[in-house]
Amino acid sequence: MYYIGIDVGGTGIKGGLVDEGGQILCRAEAKTLGTRPAEEIAADIVRLIKGVIKAGGVEENAIHSIGIGIPGACSEEEGKVIYTANMNFSGFPLRAFIQKEIKKEVHLANDANCAALGEYFALDTRPQNMVLITLGTGIGGGLVLGGHLYTGGNGIAGEVGHILLCPGGEVCGCGRRGCWEAYASVRALIRQTRAHAEAHPESALAKECGADFSALSGKTAITLWKEGDEGATEVVTKWMEYVAHGLVDMIHIFQPEVLLIGGAISREGEVLLSPIRRMAERDTIKIPVPKTEIRAARLGNDAGLIGAAFLGRQ
Amino acid sequence: MYYIGIDVGGTGIKGGLVDEGGQILCRAEAKTLGTRPAEEIAADIVRLIKGVIKAGGVEENAIHSIGIGIPGACSEEEGKVIYTANMNFSGFPLRAFIQKEIKKEVHLANDANCAALGEYFALDTRPQNMVLITLGTGIGGGLVLGGHLYTGGNGIAGEVGHILLCPGGEVCGCGRRGCWEAYASVRALIRQTRAHAEAHPESALAKECGADFSALSGKTAITLWKEGDEGATEVVTKWMEYVAHGLVDMIHIFQPEVLLIGGAISREGEVLLSPIRRMAERDTIKIPVPKTEIRAARLGNDAGLIGAAFLGRQ
Repeated sequence: MYYIGIDVGGTGIKGGLVDEGGQILCRAEAKTLGTRPAEEIAADIVRLIKGVIKAGGVEENAIHSIGIGIPGACSEEEGKVIYTANMNFSGFPLRAFIQKEIKKEVHLANDANCAALGEYFALDTRPQNMVLITLGTGIGGGLVLGGHLYTGGNGIAGEVGHILLCPGGEVCGCGRRGCWEAYASVRALIRQTRAHAEAHPESALAKECGADFSALSGKTAITLWKEGDEGATEVVTKWMEYVAHGLVDMIHIFQPEVLLIGGAISREGEVLLSPIRRMAERDTIKIPVPKTEIRAARLGNDAGLIGAAFLGRQ
Repeated sequence: MYYIGIDVGGTGIKGGLVDEGGQILCRAEAKTLGTRPAEEIAADIVRLIKGVIKAGGVEENAIHSIGIGIPGACSEEEGKVIYTANMNFSGFPLRAFIQKEIKKEVHLANDANCAALGEYFALDTRPQNMVLITLGTGIGGGLVLGGHLYTGGNGIAGEVGHILLCPGGEVCGCGRRGCWEAYASVRALIRQTRAHAEAHPESALAKECGADFSALSGKTAITLWKEGDEGATEVVTKWMEYVAHGLVDMIHIFQPEVLLIGGAISREGEVLLSPIRRMAERDTIKIPVPKTEIRAARLGNDAGLIGAAFLGRQ
């Protein structure tokens, strides 16, 4: 059987035909243009679905189901989008709309949750419980518990970026102060790098940032840290501690067999993961039971699409 | 059918015969004396089980199953205690020991997890997802997710007292600094009350604590706060904020339909819960989806026993 996954993002909608092994056999894409009427966005989704079926050259009866990842909250029961930010999609009966044109099972879920499911199916050995933390501009999360995607009572569980790390601390994108995301995201690393450069204008790190910080990115401090630069080491070590703090929380709460780190950071691989893992192990409660394995996620940007495709496969 | 629950605590082992409605029909109790050989403790457990069956006057074939709550980690698969602190029980094959004498299903789980299951069955309407937070001397937690007790990959999930609230902050019982428990437990409230009294020796709060703090308890500040005392209001408000911070984390992570507050604090009822609930609602991410209901737990000290009894009923 084949599965169709749709990953609705802020700028683009990606569609793919996925096989049992999690390979994307063909792809199609459209612009989101989120301020359009919901019917237009949904019509593009239908077009993408039909497009990948045709391009894949498979019979419609070889399609098991369709899954759609939404950047917001969905009701799987009602087949509705409940809420999306910056998009005219809230309240839209997406399943019914699609099923008018294509007679298939249609599943809806939050995009971060889809990513977790995609990564879960990509594991060589699938444990009962897996937590995915996506460390990018922000911090997202997805939970596979007891072998199933866990979405809570309202479809938006797993907002782990907004657990509180420092009450009254740095302002977070969500408006509150002190969230984990405000300390351990890539955006936070950039802010921490800039603060260090401003405080030490003669440092190699400041020079690397450029006079007007135009060369500053999430990689600036990491690159210099790998070269052994002192200022960068201070910045990156502190930031890795913040990352580890949240991972330890995830372990204390879920004790999953596997904790996956995805997002931009996972591309650095073991060079970052290995010190973060040591910090997390240092702080995890000392009970002689099997430990959570902290690993890099594998699927990168395709996780959401593949996971959406597999929503009907759980 | 009837169920037998055993709640092994640090000082006492409680046994009870429980009916389908969650009523404890009869009870028996023994001292734990945790430094005894495991076989002696286990023999006492067998004695309690036989005792409540006999005292209850029920046939052995009317007993559905036996459940045992352990202050530590268990393996339900292997039927073993994996780890207990301050007790000679680690590694003990408790199920096999009991089944030599009583031919019944025997289930094992952590005691805080049992409490969550007990409270779950005591709800008038059982939601899919419920989180129990026990605010006592420490902070414990138990998770019922998708209608089942969630214990993680190693049986010790739900150690929510040890999520990090203030890196480098107050020392926690676990040895780390800054855990939620170090700010929001009853022990933390007592410490915060004492600090305020020491800083304001002429205050009503200081007087209430007694000259040598011999009259200081978790209730000291709460009692004066209810009477409108300014110093007590400062202490209790700050402490309630800490409590709310962790509850908001639980909501962001789990988005459960119901979040129950148990432990000593729940006995104060709405007078404490209502301001804590307002604080939590103020800080919860603003997405128009169904909200988590924050309520007081109902079963008090019996939650662990009843939940243990119902381990086989899930």
